[in-house]
Amino acid sequence: MNYYAGIDLGGTKTYCVIIDEKGNILSREKIKIGTDRKIEPVLDIVCECYKAAIAGANLTENDIFAVGMAVPSAVNTEKQILLNAPNLGWKNIKIGEIMSNKLNKPVFVDNDVNLGTFGEYTFGKAQKYKNVYGIFVGTGVGGGYIHDGKLVRGAGFTAGEIGHMIVKQGGTMCNCGNQGCLEAIAGKVGIIKHIERKIEEKGKTTKLDEISPNWRNSVGASALHKAIKSKDKLTIKAVERSAEAIGVACSNIINTIGIDAIILGGGIIEELGDIYLPIIRLTIQECSMANGGSNFPIIISELADDAVALGAAWQAVEIYSQK
Amino acid sequence: MNYYAGIDLGGTKTYCVIIDEKGNILSREKIKIGTDRKIEPVLDIVCECYKAAIAGANLTENDIFAVGMAVPSAVNTEKQILLNAPNLGWKNIKIGEIMSNKLNKPVFVDNDVNLGTFGEYTFGKAQKYKNVYGIFVGTGVGGGYIHDGKLVRGAGFTAGEIGHMIVKQGGTMCNCGNQGCLEAIAGKVGIIKHIERKIEEKGKTTKLDEISPNWRNSVGASALHKAIKSKDKLTIKAVERSAEAIGVACSNIINTIGIDAIILGGGIIEELGDIYLPIIRLTIQECSMANGGSNFPIIISELADDAVALGAAWQAVEIYSQK
Repeated sequence: MNYYAGIDLGGTKTYCVIIDEKGNILSREKIKIGTDRKIEPVLDIVCECYKAAIAGANLTENDIFAVGMAVPSAVNTEKQILLNAPNLGWKNIKIGEIMSNKLNKPVFVDNDVNLGTFGEYTFGKAQKYKNVYGIFVGTGVGGGYIHDGKLVRGAGFTAGEIGHMIVKQGGTMCNCGNQGCLEAIAGKVGIIKHIERKIEEKGKTTKLDEISPNWRNSVGASALHKAIKSKDKLTIKAVERSAEAIGVACSNIINTIGIDAIILGGGIIEELGDIYLPIIRLTIQECSMANGGSNFPIIISELADDAVALGAAWQAVEIYSQK
Repeated sequence: MNYYAGIDLGGTKTYCVIIDEKGNILSREKIKIGTDRKIEPVLDIVCECYKAAIAGANLTENDIFAVGMAVPSAVNTEKQILLNAPNLGWKNIKIGEIMSNKLNKPVFVDNDVNLGTFGEYTFGKAQKYKNVYGIFVGTGVGGGYIHDGKLVRGAGFTAGEIGHMIVKQGGTMCNCGNQGCLEAIAGKVGIIKHIERKIEEKGKTTKLDEISPNWRNSVGASALHKAIKSKDKLTIKAVERSAEAIGVACSNIINTIGIDAIILGGGIIEELGDIYLPIIRLTIQECSMANGGSNFPIIISELADDAVALGAAWQAVEIYSQK
């Protein structure tokens, strides 16, 4: 039996799973990345995590046939170059070659949300569909596009960058420099900024001050949930606005490329799905053309932390198992 | 040698080409549709046009192997049902079966802009690309999506409805009932309405009053061009706003699905391309992620009136020639 590793390198932690060739997870390992974001020390932690996961599966490095790796960056998958990872401060890194040398294995690297979508598509509830779009809502908003069962990267490797779909020309400023991007409205950062604006403009108050005093810098989805349960109007409004923008983005996808299903995931959706889903459904129904909107399949991701690493490992299976 | 007919049924006229199996056009015919929009009389005119085109090619009906037909409507291509053609007032018509009985030939029906994109893709300058999106700007805005060389219809047959991509939540009201659709900003109707609003709101005047006195009801692209040449500020502003929205839609497509090229066509682009193209290019450069925007291939359609009918005929070749 051959085994594969799937690595999910994020902005704050690295996560690794070991799977067998049927996709069963044998072990999971997670290690936090320190404040040093230089490439070498970070990749050393990645290797440590990888080795710990192998040990956790009672295997040795020799048992691993190939490795898939997800990074928080657009990736030139043909040349295996990490293009730009703002959270890590890395640009134009030959990540595939570096990791392959470090691990002495074939390594395939791709964008984390692409691989998360692929993981959900392969192992989650979206398996019966051939054309799906994944939208993951957390601090930012990312996506992945699967056409006819295959991940689409696109010329320029931009496919999946739905966080930078402009849904409101002239709207809220986004970190990317444009205005009205989905991420600037619907991501956690967008939600926080909207609440801050309303406090400034209208002198309103929010219960987040008690629930999560440091909310302006960083707020968990569960704190937002608590604020909504305690009927905090600013949070409710900002979250509804986020959900509506996600619904518009879904409709835009349905109207322009006509997919079979949408996968929704990420920390915000996992925690606040009950609030998001009805608004997203209603918006899709209102905004989609022809028969696109009625009973459109929306699938909530169910793999949580495993999605990305599992997608990475399975991509390695698909690429290397036949060679 | 087998011959094929391509029919383009529009809201005001029907157009037909006869091609050989290499795609050479042997004849063209155009007939206006009267004010009677009932199905039978309109389809009688379509048949008349088809027969005149065959005669024009010095052929007989027996020489025609199959027919492709474009309609101004979303089409369930599997069941060959015209879903909704607002310009004709038709809904849920078994158009494929009706036409096949009338012409006594295999007939394949699809949406007009899908087939126009396919025509440009097959015979125009986009041939070397495999993944292209066509955007056609006229009275409204339509589109077509080709992935890996094949027209994508999508579940619900909504693919290509880029006119109803929402680029400005809460923006201008669209005929579809939503706000901020691309069509409501960028189509000719959107341009006219914007000029009207500025006149109402700010009491401004426009040279269109002299150039094309009936402009509020209907204005040609050439009249808009004249107004721009005579430095009519309202027209310039409305057209720039239209071009910017098209650029945003192009970026949204690049960022979400990562295509190889965009085809731009339609009456407005054909007439005003010199004004549109630099604005669209700049917007794409500003709004596209990663390497998506730099030197992105934008192809101006070159088949004009032939695009749709030729795409329809060639679709019939692809579907029926092997059977």
